[in-house]
Amino acid sequence: MPGTTGYDATKSHSCGGCPPLSEIDAFVLMQQVLINGEWCNSIGTDGFSASNPATKTALELTFPVSPWEEIERAVQSAAAAAAIVRQWPGERFAAFLEAYADEIEKVAEAIIASANEETALPSEPRLKMEMGRATNQLRQAANAARSGSWAEPTIDTATNIRSMFGPIGPVVVFGPNNFPLAFNGISGGDFAAAVAAGNPVIAKGHSAHPRTTQLFAECAQRAATATDMPPGFVQLIYRTSHSDGAKLVSHPLIGASGYTGARHTGLVLKAAADQAGKPIYLELSSVNPVLMLPGALKERGEELAGEFSSSCLMGTGQFCTNPGLVLLVDGPDTELFIKAVAGKFSDAPVGTLLGEGVEKSLKSGIEALVDAGAEVVVGNAAADANRCCYGNTLLKVSGEAFLKNPAGLQAEAFGNASLFVVAKDGDELAAVISHLEGNLTGCVYSHTGGDDDALYDAVAPILRQKVGRLLNDKMPTGVAVSPAMNHGGPFPSTGHPGFTAVGIPASVKRFGMLQCYDNVRPHRLPPALQDKNPTGSMWRSVDGNWTQEEVGK
Amino acid sequence: MPGTTGYDATKSHSCGGCPPLSEIDAFVLMQQVLINGEWCNSIGTDGFSASNPATKTALELTFPVSPWEEIERAVQSAAAAAAIVRQWPGERFAAFLEAYADEIEKVAEAIIASANEETALPSEPRLKMEMGRATNQLRQAANAARSGSWAEPTIDTATNIRSMFGPIGPVVVFGPNNFPLAFNGISGGDFAAAVAAGNPVIAKGHSAHPRTTQLFAECAQRAATATDMPPGFVQLIYRTSHSDGAKLVSHPLIGASGYTGARHTGLVLKAAADQAGKPIYLELSSVNPVLMLPGALKERGEELAGEFSSSCLMGTGQFCTNPGLVLLVDGPDTELFIKAVAGKFSDAPVGTLLGEGVEKSLKSGIEALVDAGAEVVVGNAAADANRCCYGNTLLKVSGEAFLKNPAGLQAEAFGNASLFVVAKDGDELAAVISHLEGNLTGCVYSHTGGDDDALYDAVAPILRQKVGRLLNDKMPTGVAVSPAMNHGGPFPSTGHPGFTAVGIPASVKRFGMLQCYDNVRPHRLPPALQDKNPTGSMWRSVDGNWTQEEVGK
Repeated sequence: MPGTTGYDATKSHSCGGCPPLSEIDAFVLMQQVLINGEWCNSIGTDGFSASNPATKTALELTFPVSPWEEIERAVQSAAAAAAIVRQWPGERFAAFLEAYADEIEKVAEAIIASANEETALPSEPRLKMEMGRATNQLRQAANAARSGSWAEPTIDTATNIRSMFGPIGPVVVFGPNNFPLAFNGISGGDFAAAVAAGNPVIAKGHSAHPRTTQLFAECAQRAATATDMPPGFVQLIYRTSHSDGAKLVSHPLIGASGYTGARHTGLVLKAAADQAGKPIYLELSSVNPVLMLPGALKERGEELAGEFSSSCLMGTGQFCTNPGLVLLVDGPDTELFIKAVAGKFSDAPVGTLLGEGVEKSLKSGIEALVDAGAEVVVGNAAADANRCCYGNTLLKVSGEAFLKNPAGLQAEAFGNASLFVVAKDGDELAAVISHLEGNLTGCVYSHTGGDDDALYDAVAPILRQKVGRLLNDKMPTGVAVSPAMNHGGPFPSTGHPGFTAVGIPASVKRFGMLQCYDNVRPHRLPPALQDKNPTGSMWRSVDGNWTQEEVGK
Repeated sequence: MPGTTGYDATKSHSCGGCPPLSEIDAFVLMQQVLINGEWCNSIGTDGFSASNPATKTALELTFPVSPWEEIERAVQSAAAAAAIVRQWPGERFAAFLEAYADEIEKVAEAIIASANEETALPSEPRLKMEMGRATNQLRQAANAARSGSWAEPTIDTATNIRSMFGPIGPVVVFGPNNFPLAFNGISGGDFAAAVAAGNPVIAKGHSAHPRTTQLFAECAQRAATATDMPPGFVQLIYRTSHSDGAKLVSHPLIGASGYTGARHTGLVLKAAADQAGKPIYLELSSVNPVLMLPGALKERGEELAGEFSSSCLMGTGQFCTNPGLVLLVDGPDTELFIKAVAGKFSDAPVGTLLGEGVEKSLKSGIEALVDAGAEVVVGNAAADANRCCYGNTLLKVSGEAFLKNPAGLQAEAFGNASLFVVAKDGDELAAVISHLEGNLTGCVYSHTGGDDDALYDAVAPILRQKVGRLLNDKMPTGVAVSPAMNHGGPFPSTGHPGFTAVGIPASVKRFGMLQCYDNVRPHRLPPALQDKNPTGSMWRSVDGNWTQEEVGK
């Protein structure tokens, strides 16, 4: 397969870590890992292949499971790279990020084709749009690195104490299955943010789309070479054992980690990182409650049924912010709304899921909700045995039943399914909200004329504390890359309610450590903390005021 | 004892939680806890008393160990208070903080006298200065609350997405033994920051100075009443079991916790909070490495011996930023420096320690360093059996020996002791630094004429990544309350290298959660996110630029 970075017996390897040819017969077809600036043969003997969810057939390439020795080599290389780049100006990281975005655009079609094959997400418009988001994100991160304002340089002239965020150290990024481009471990938001903060990245690709990840890594490696980044600045492994993953995020030489994915695995990594005192930024499950207040349903119930159904079934419901829980107040308009959504769920084509694992977990997730007392309105049925999918499913439960088992009834069923909770009145609605776990988003639809305002005022403050992003009259599934975005929320939607995974420059700060300089001689200060504004436009807080001026001007 | 909040059989209690009189015979002398806006009798039957470290005698008052039922009542009350104040303007919290500072000043002498009795820290100048710092900190926090700029309101007009930090929920603060005023759980930096962010606080006083803490709480309660704060906004318990402490920081209704103190206890709390996904900001042990480069010692070794000895013995070495580890390069000037410090350590009076626990841990800490290979230069001997103290102790070890057991030789011996590590050359010095754990501070003294610059450039970048605050030619023991201060650092000095416990407004952000508003109707936005600047001077980031203007102006 031309252009792939699989084993090539004719190529000599200078990376220092490849096993000799005699030992690699067993995995002669294994794809290569990117370590210390070189594509090289894995020393691992276990391999895996992705499959096409649209056909349930295995794909051709085999990718290695990296053993610890190989991961350790990546960590050492990343630490060496971190030491080299630590004092580089943001311009250097910006140049790499922009070169990388350019490289990606040259082979965007191939990457999209691969992602389509590995995830069944449609090339048009979905993956094409996601690709635009990914390269845009890399360029926004480049701008943040170049500007340096993300680091919040703070100068107190009275005491001559100065501080700013500096790079935290090598970052490990675990990408999820549902956004193979814009959240990919080697091209997505965490990657972009970690690099913008000045850190090398070890990417752990998602096992469901290794070839897509590999194609990105080829671009990253070319960009790294073109912009003179040290070897080990960008590295890629495809899979590790769970215990090696835990060892990796708690490694003394690692600065921080980012993980987006299933809750169980994320919590295992969190426990390991927490114990070692290493920051880990998680994006775990979220059911994203949507409140449809009575006045809104009375006013525009049919329209909202359409808006909700589109949002919930878009991408076969496989968004982090998919509206998986709808909170309603009993009444005739609510009954009509449920009926209308049920009709749309029945009529809508059943989308293909990302893989057999997702199909299995969706089925068992729905089953768990039914066991917890939810009633099936439509769906909960197989759809097409030849591809990964499951019928669009709408479930319903009373507020009273929800309050008897709030944990069981807010468990995520990731995919094209949603649970409606029908409270008997506003008080019960408030009680249901107060029993919610932390979520990424919470939406409230209310009457445009103000009929719902009293109820809004009663429930919105409770919801506010439970979610990272509060929306009005809008579905949560769009996550704009805006400086004001919060793609985060209280546990267990993430691990810390003060951080966002999307939105530049806020997401960049996660990968900085606060570095203070007390009485440090002026020429030894980082340029961002010297009296002169190094770019002329960097925002700095000087004596309590934000300014772009030089100190003393 | 007039003015104390002990049990008073003539007083009727309306707090709803006090046990009936018939049940309280056993603890009729027990001091009261402050729960839900009332001083009331603890339901706990276990009590403890502080002692005077200057005389090793027990003090008169008995304070309760609060059982879980009592703690749970405090949590419920704090959660109710949080719901009430959540949308209050910063002005309300500022008014409380300022009234509190005023109340403290009215009884400052009594508080200082109590702190002196309970900690043996000298009233003048130490406790008087610390009191000034405490009230100044409360007023700085009031300014931050009033200004609102700490919340970093961020507005993106293109997408109409707006975000800011909002209150995280009730905060639990565990104060340490070594700063009974400025770090006290109910009056110190964490308390001030948590309130400035709009959160109720449950303070857990340190067992070594309960009466001092109680006096503060009386002031806090008066201020809370005067400024119409809800009951449960400020609460005080004195002691809990370790398991109840862990339960408290992981309680679903608690937003976050702050803990300053011993590493072991802090890690127990961290494990519990981490598992529940609750932020906990820790300040644990730190040996605060000081590098005395050869040129500096040649130039001004005698002067530096004096500067170091004063810093290390000040407050009997009981500062979080005490220089407990000095890194040197072998040579004649280094020998002279060690000799000079040894002389000063021998000559200096032996200060009184904070308590018998500190004396015991200092002895065992020194013993552990000796067991790990350190040689005693001076000290390691008893000083005065009638008070809590231990001889000023200077230890020494070679760089080579340090590198064989870096963990053992950087264990903290909290108090008037320090370990000198003598590396054979600059390379070994660099190796020693690269084996350091995370610390709050790191200092480098170098030749003023530049003779040490090559060595500085080789070692400072390594040290930089290990510490929160890097100093030049200055001892670490002063921690200014500056907006640029970082009183934080990599694990295990704290739990996250991105946060500071001292320095306003940065310390306030720890107790905020990021709250985003997406398409929320204008009148429902918090004032800080509406187009109009609510104070006219609040700093907000609008479309990527910091400004005090209205949106659209």
